[in-house]
Amino acid sequence: MALPDLDFLRRLAAAAAEQTLPRFRQNGAVETKGAGLFDPVTEADKAAETAIRDLIMQAYPDHGILGEEHGSHGTDREYLWVIDPIDGTRAFISGLPVWGTLIGLYHNGRAVMGLMDQPFIGETFVAGHGESRYFGRSAGQEALKVRACETLADATLFTTSPKIFSDAHVGRYERVEQSVRLARYGCDCYAYALLASGHADIVVESDLKPYDIAALIPIIENAGGVITTWDGGRPEGGGDIVACGSRRVHEEALALLKN
Amino acid sequence: MALPDLDFLRRLAAAAAEQTLPRFRQNGAVETKGAGLFDPVTEADKAAETAIRDLIMQAYPDHGILGEEHGSHGTDREYLWVIDPIDGTRAFISGLPVWGTLIGLYHNGRAVMGLMDQPFIGETFVAGHGESRYFGRSAGQEALKVRACETLADATLFTTSPKIFSDAHVGRYERVEQSVRLARYGCDCYAYALLASGHADIVVESDLKPYDIAALIPIIENAGGVITTWDGGRPEGGGDIVACGSRRVHEEALALLKN
Repeated sequence: MALPDLDFLRRLAAAAAEQTLPRFRQNGAVETKGAGLFDPVTEADKAAETAIRDLIMQAYPDHGILGEEHGSHGTDREYLWVIDPIDGTRAFISGLPVWGTLIGLYHNGRAVMGLMDQPFIGETFVAGHGESRYFGRSAGQEALKVRACETLADATLFTTSPKIFSDAHVGRYERVEQSVRLARYGCDCYAYALLASGHADIVVESDLKPYDIAALIPIIENAGGVITTWDGGRPEGGGDIVACGSRRVHEEALALLKN
Repeated sequence: MALPDLDFLRRLAAAAAEQTLPRFRQNGAVETKGAGLFDPVTEADKAAETAIRDLIMQAYPDHGILGEEHGSHGTDREYLWVIDPIDGTRAFISGLPVWGTLIGLYHNGRAVMGLMDQPFIGETFVAGHGESRYFGRSAGQEALKVRACETLADATLFTTSPKIFSDAHVGRYERVEQSVRLARYGCDCYAYALLASGHADIVVESDLKPYDIAALIPIIENAGGVITTWDGGRPEGGGDIVACGSRRVHEEALALLKN
């Protein structure tokens, strides 16, 4: 069976954006409305995932789906969609447009297509069929390609926060942070998209769910990057993740992240 | 002498954007080109400040100017412009569109007008003549207003990084972070703009220069917020800064930030 084209993933993102955008920057994030709670981010998350799932089930009824909000069905099928309708909930809540909609497609457990979409800024990073592409409202369309980076000492590192790491992990992470030229916090999925675009060199994160990372794997791999677990294994299952633009930086990082 | 109108500040921002945008996301941030160095962020910084200064000197030759890149002249004059052409250099370097152009105007040492502009996303936060306004490519135009927040325990906090604080300050900062509901890192000037927009409740930072904060003071004050040094003084001189949407949260924070 043929894989969908990149446009199908972009149509899924557009359907999600119809649900997320009207709820973004609505003041009073969690307010009591009569008897119940009004929570725009949860509402946006659920409605966006429903919109994505409906389109997938219509076009690919045989595929399985694993979503952050509405659970899973058919996770043992040949094709499995892995969805996080709003990655970067804290950014969404606080009005910062660096959250993204993540949609990945696994084939026999291997990530083969992926999309990260930020509809407020108007940019989409999408991968499949051997390529990674950027579509931007401000900046047009182009192929994504990681940049060359010879050593960790020259690298720009992204992570969500130095406080995401457990006691067992923080020392290993800090060894990497102390080896790089520049570290920047607070970007969630954007970090991986910018790595695939050649603007950053390494992303280190911990304790990720499959839907946090699924969509980003092909975006990075098709742009020429490397993404694995901290022990060098495949990243499709989530967990502790390290992504690099260059193989050399990845090897250096793995050595430091070893227990 | 009359203050400029808000449109004059927006014209300054447009002139700066002509210099910053073409240099944003240009891969190979610092590359050797023949004999010299090519550094897009420094180039963008300098060219944007020159563009802003030229327009100011043309329209207001009697005013003083204090800029991050090109130094100062007439800092003892009645009117003083305080400029940071690219606040958030790390974001700029790494391709994340959360840097901003900051332009403030002091009258006898007091911040009376200010602008923060993010031209890639297409949004401008501008204050003067008693109001703070938002202009967005995606989201139209509206008045800025802080949101109500009863106590620090309900607050969303922003800071650039928990590592910006000196040994003498980090403990005082951590007392505040540990008291809030949600903390988010890595936003520089955006944090203040989002506070003025009612999407966050407190920003705590340390060791700021006047040009890091000048433009943001009227944006916050005209939106109903409070911004002072950690000891409750006026913020125009920079230093250790705390900004809050509500007076009550500000009082709680000051008590924790005391030495």
